[in-house]
Amino acid sequence: MPSLDICFSPELLPLYDLRGKVAVVVDILRATSSIVTALAAGVTHVVPFSELDECRALAAQGYLTAAERDGRQAEGFDLGNSPFGYLDGVLPVRGRGVAITTTNGTRALHLSLGAEAVVIGAFLNLEAVAQFARAQGKDVVVVCAGWKGMFNLEDTVFGGALAERLAADFDTTGSDATLAARHLWEQAKPDLEGYLLQSAHVRRLNSLEANKDFAYCVQLDTHDIVPIWRDGKLVVNT
Amino acid sequence: MPSLDICFSPELLPLYDLRGKVAVVVDILRATSSIVTALAAGVTHVVPFSELDECRALAAQGYLTAAERDGRQAEGFDLGNSPFGYLDGVLPVRGRGVAITTTNGTRALHLSLGAEAVVIGAFLNLEAVAQFARAQGKDVVVVCAGWKGMFNLEDTVFGGALAERLAADFDTTGSDATLAARHLWEQAKPDLEGYLLQSAHVRRLNSLEANKDFAYCVQLDTHDIVPIWRDGKLVVNT
Repeated sequence: MPSLDICFSPELLPLYDLRGKVAVVVDILRATSSIVTALAAGVTHVVPFSELDECRALAAQGYLTAAERDGRQAEGFDLGNSPFGYLDGVLPVRGRGVAITTTNGTRALHLSLGAEAVVIGAFLNLEAVAQFARAQGKDVVVVCAGWKGMFNLEDTVFGGALAERLAADFDTTGSDATLAARHLWEQAKPDLEGYLLQSAHVRRLNSLEANKDFAYCVQLDTHDIVPIWRDGKLVVNT
Repeated sequence: MPSLDICFSPELLPLYDLRGKVAVVVDILRATSSIVTALAAGVTHVVPFSELDECRALAAQGYLTAAERDGRQAEGFDLGNSPFGYLDGVLPVRGRGVAITTTNGTRALHLSLGAEAVVIGAFLNLEAVAQFARAQGKDVVVVCAGWKGMFNLEDTVFGGALAERLAADFDTTGSDATLAARHLWEQAKPDLEGYLLQSAHVRRLNSLEANKDFAYCVQLDTHDIVPIWRDGKLVVNT
């Protein structure tokens, strides 16, 4: 039986051997929720960058550019990190590529590239990710983006939710991280939005726009797609 | 109001600024439980080492030597990492110094020495540590030893228990790590031993001796002492 483990921070990834495994990168607020939304909205592919300048340079190649630093849209970019950037119809996004850079999510993704398969997880596509993992039948490591390297509640609780969905087919009891994440998910599940409202990160994001994003990002199973890393970009797995 | 934060692994300590703060180092199974027990049993001081050879060399200076690697007593040492080494009367320990090296606990301690005060926490001396923290009135960081750098349940739950004791006098809501630890402690509290029996680490330790140690280490408030780091050794705070 394959196993499911959870890495609470990119800083802990050197302790995990990702070879031959499926890495599920998660940054609920908001990078991976936005990537799922972008690809579902018809964006052809998403290219993640660590640095603002590298990301901005892709505009010359016809990319939409998206950047967030410390929770706000960075200057000189088409989009920030809000999923509504792909939904509100202000910018036509269908058929475009998107170059994106975010504080935590991009770093987690780049550090996960040693895995056999790297996919993007969010509450929005939870069941799609679970189905992908079942179909692969390989060990899974959930890589939480965290907050500036530290543990955060929303990514951890996602890990617990995925562990619950996979509990029949995966060993989800082999690490204390997974056990803790499942316990936290059990507490959160009856009122996910209310539970995560206490999180320090959520309170930090507190603003009209962020509250709207937050309510959107805690929805379960709204998108039946799995973004996967192929040839240097994120595309919809087919 | 001072704050209480929790660092889940020594690997994450570079993200925490310990200057001017109280570091509470915790390695419930079993280093810090044993250190509390040793000092309560009349050991004069404990000197922690990273390496077996350094530790063993102290025997020539009249020290008792204690070493554990991967959960077992290391060869050529007087004691392992079991608290019962200080209790069973086989070796007279009163009035002796102890040189100790353990897999996780020593590392966590050494990485915490940038703090204003470094003390040793265990369930055994939970209330004594809480009183010490209240008296200091400074920010507290609980430094979990973890398991080979990874998150573990027992150290985290201790952090949650300390946060609960300090909730009236400290801000315990400023980080998601503390919030999660409190939630886990709330689940664990009604049956701490039963709760921690599920932990991967506890199952790994499973043996007759380890089970006895485990049952001992999950007792609350049995020892009214606080081991503190002074001049290169751990002594009872007076």
